[in-house]
Amino acid sequence: MENSSRVYVYDTTLRDGAQTQGVDFSATDKARIARELDRIGIDYIEGGWPKANATDDAFFANPPELNRSRLAAFGMTRRAGRSADNDPGLGALLVTPARVVTLVGKSWDFQVTVALGIELDENLRMIADSIAHAAAKVDEALFDAEHFFDGYKANPDYALSAVRAAYQAGARWVVLCDTNGGTLPHEVSRIVGEVIAAGIPGSHIGIHCHNDSETAVANSLAAVAAGARQVQGTLNGLGERCGNANLVSVIPALMLKMGFTTGVSLEDLASLKTVSRALDDVLDRVPQRGQPYVGASAFAHKGGLHVSAVARDPRCYEHIDPALVGNVRHFVVSDQAGRSNIVARMNEIGVDLDAVKREALVRVVGQMQVGFDPHSVTDLVDLVKKLEGEGYTYDQAAASFELLVRRALGEVPDYFTLERYRVIDERRRNARGDWITLSEATVKVEVDGNDYMEVGEGTGPVHAFDVALRKVLVGVYPELTALELKDYRVRITESTVGTSAKTRVTIESEDGRGNRWTTVGVHSNVLEASLEALQDSITFMLFRLGTQS
Amino acid sequence: MENSSRVYVYDTTLRDGAQTQGVDFSATDKARIARELDRIGIDYIEGGWPKANATDDAFFANPPELNRSRLAAFGMTRRAGRSADNDPGLGALLVTPARVVTLVGKSWDFQVTVALGIELDENLRMIADSIAHAAAKVDEALFDAEHFFDGYKANPDYALSAVRAAYQAGARWVVLCDTNGGTLPHEVSRIVGEVIAAGIPGSHIGIHCHNDSETAVANSLAAVAAGARQVQGTLNGLGERCGNANLVSVIPALMLKMGFTTGVSLEDLASLKTVSRALDDVLDRVPQRGQPYVGASAFAHKGGLHVSAVARDPRCYEHIDPALVGNVRHFVVSDQAGRSNIVARMNEIGVDLDAVKREALVRVVGQMQVGFDPHSVTDLVDLVKKLEGEGYTYDQAAASFELLVRRALGEVPDYFTLERYRVIDERRRNARGDWITLSEATVKVEVDGNDYMEVGEGTGPVHAFDVALRKVLVGVYPELTALELKDYRVRITESTVGTSAKTRVTIESEDGRGNRWTTVGVHSNVLEASLEALQDSITFMLFRLGTQS
Repeated sequence: MENSSRVYVYDTTLRDGAQTQGVDFSATDKARIARELDRIGIDYIEGGWPKANATDDAFFANPPELNRSRLAAFGMTRRAGRSADNDPGLGALLVTPARVVTLVGKSWDFQVTVALGIELDENLRMIADSIAHAAAKVDEALFDAEHFFDGYKANPDYALSAVRAAYQAGARWVVLCDTNGGTLPHEVSRIVGEVIAAGIPGSHIGIHCHNDSETAVANSLAAVAAGARQVQGTLNGLGERCGNANLVSVIPALMLKMGFTTGVSLEDLASLKTVSRALDDVLDRVPQRGQPYVGASAFAHKGGLHVSAVARDPRCYEHIDPALVGNVRHFVVSDQAGRSNIVARMNEIGVDLDAVKREALVRVVGQMQVGFDPHSVTDLVDLVKKLEGEGYTYDQAAASFELLVRRALGEVPDYFTLERYRVIDERRRNARGDWITLSEATVKVEVDGNDYMEVGEGTGPVHAFDVALRKVLVGVYPELTALELKDYRVRITESTVGTSAKTRVTIESEDGRGNRWTTVGVHSNVLEASLEALQDSITFMLFRLGTQS
Repeated sequence: MENSSRVYVYDTTLRDGAQTQGVDFSATDKARIARELDRIGIDYIEGGWPKANATDDAFFANPPELNRSRLAAFGMTRRAGRSADNDPGLGALLVTPARVVTLVGKSWDFQVTVALGIELDENLRMIADSIAHAAAKVDEALFDAEHFFDGYKANPDYALSAVRAAYQAGARWVVLCDTNGGTLPHEVSRIVGEVIAAGIPGSHIGIHCHNDSETAVANSLAAVAAGARQVQGTLNGLGERCGNANLVSVIPALMLKMGFTTGVSLEDLASLKTVSRALDDVLDRVPQRGQPYVGASAFAHKGGLHVSAVARDPRCYEHIDPALVGNVRHFVVSDQAGRSNIVARMNEIGVDLDAVKREALVRVVGQMQVGFDPHSVTDLVDLVKKLEGEGYTYDQAAASFELLVRRALGEVPDYFTLERYRVIDERRRNARGDWITLSEATVKVEVDGNDYMEVGEGTGPVHAFDVALRKVLVGVYPELTALELKDYRVRITESTVGTSAKTRVTIESEDGRGNRWTTVGVHSNVLEASLEALQDSITFMLFRLGTQS
């Protein structure tokens, strides 16, 4: 007897997600994502479409070892006028290591007659034959009913006969697909109910939604509420056009809000943010700050009133405990910031203003105006506002924010001072007539009263500068050998003035032990902005290690 | 008699949207957004919170002229223990030019006793007094019932008594707020139904949702389906944490899918994409490609099978006609591309392969291998794949794609050839001891067999190069005077190798007549990548103008 509160999760990041504009997985990428999905107990992982492209073939030739998930291969039902036995596409699907096979077929009469140009009955035979053939050869055969909801609205009897053909031929699941993404939750709810009433048990019904109406998550939840017990979707809602249903939002809603269980345990759920980030990492994408449940802003509090309230009781502005999905509460510094914000943020980085008020201050950084009182929260708020007005975004560069505050409090030593530099970039032909590109940087740096000069070559101006600066600094601070730059981004902060506009450079760094931090630099010269962010990054690492200058 | 199919749209981009992390509107920004909202017939525009900050005061002191929308000011109900008459906050709200006033108050008993620390009855009196006071002074008073859904789940009687107090005191609308964004559509549907059953007419009920569960759009639609007739939300779902309900998705669903009318006509709806982009422009944000209805990918077709099907009948993979919301169909070039994709894309830019097959080819660009046959779609697909493997992303740089194809077909003249360049960046102290930063570029360029050398200074290396190159080119091609760089973005394409990684530079340009195009360059040297994108941008403008070299 099926436990009616158990919902099966089917991930199609590696197949439907691979259709996303700008996404191009390698077989290695796919294996890495599959291992993440397996780690948290996703029931099914659709690996790809064998024989459709070289990447998918390479993936199935050498699939990752899975401990908890079942691997599925995707393909089409047999072609018209062939036997299932004698269909090369179907045959190729059944010889991969995947013991689950998902076959897509038509359920909208318009698609059968117009797109395929075949008889309606032949389409039903194609579904039944193919499912029966596959079900006999592998552990589970699934039927993806393409365009099911549009088909059902146009001709409910035919759409039902298509999924009935698959179910009666032995499909473990018939999956109702909203291929165009145009269906709304109340329609999904009604139609799933009618399919169940027509004799297909909910324990054999899956749902596959696209986000074209911005309701893919709600549609998926509506289908489960109506009785479906399998949900298909992708990590972070990856997918063609507007994406597929986002499993990262579907799973916690099912488990934390609707009383269902999945293959994901509550303990696994605490890795949800990590799994979501792993996909961004493979894609080299900046994680979406506002992503529900797992985004950096999902539990970030900005308005001064909200911050006071959350500090009193998190239920005031948080729908779940962020720890349940591996996320954390965060207080944001910004122009909206009131006093309670900046104090909360300083507490977060461990600065106790009351304590420092009793101390003498060593110095005030050059950026700050005469008369600036670092003891004063108001002055700090004003300073943050002033710098944000110049284009700095401390929301996204917590390390630079911490340095700003701690410099104001005199806590940050002068590890080094850049005296001057010169960077030359050149492209010309060499003696043999080949094009050569050169970047060379000269730096003069003062450390502890001593001047050092070094020169470095690099693949570009920022790299050449980094090489020369680190030549100096690694001699004094050998721990900097482990510093790695992980991401480098440039944006214009004023959109109207072309290449002379102010640029904001954001650098993400790592210390070789998995700790990452982000720094920011702003200048009309992209190189100056880069150097500012780079110097902040180095200073932050030394400060965190407690290095004495 | 109220027309029951008319839904009122209330925009809070300027107030709740301003809470978004990283967002900081000026009063001018706010006025510009308000004019866009007014242009398409949004019923209410919430301008901000008077006396909360200087920006909102500046906005209300000099509000934009609105033709179709009503301006609303937001604030709180009176404080405990004061009369409404004698509350300075409430007083400040009633003297702005806004003739609609929205007052937020508590409806969750826990919030009243814990956050406010007052008696439950006093909270009801605060609501009733404040609404009655405001309703007497302005055209419409609205009540935002904060935390209504959480409050209703905890204590339905108290939550109802709060909205009933507002309604009976004369509130034009009582707005049920899902402040934490944790409520799901089926709960919204049930609770709105129960509020109506308890005696508040749907024609006086509004809904205000947040997207923490990724269901804000669905929640809003569920409320309207259950009888509510006002929807609050923001453009592009702007808002704190995960954002507010996205009006850009709510409005077309109401009008095109659910049979409701709004203040937005079908003709206005065709400006939806423009209005959405106007907000991105104010925020200097790259528009979200995958945004439902209006994103560049919302009607983009990538998989080879899909492209063939859409070419046959758009209903196969499009939930609405993109023109209804001002969007366009788009075929995507990418590694997934099959033959039908690239042919469709070339047709889109007006290249007819069959026709060119009869022509002799002038030349093949240097990037292409010996043996490359530009007539062959397969070879072009392979070339695109090869370049995408090196980090080029033609998905996002249509102008560079068009140049690639047209160069292969020998259609693009050699407008100029960069012979060599040298860029020097320097920071040092001048004779007076002040820091100075210099960027200087020398270029040698061949045009029509003549060599030109120029030198330019700029605020950074790319700017200096641009200045020097244009000094040469504007002499030959005066039309380039109008060329403006609108956006400049840099990303690392390989995430592991720090400042020596390959960089991808994307440049967006404008020709002074509103036409924009995007070009891409990839190189391990950020300057080289920038110059490649810059040269493509100049070439594309000259090519589009039909300039003869």
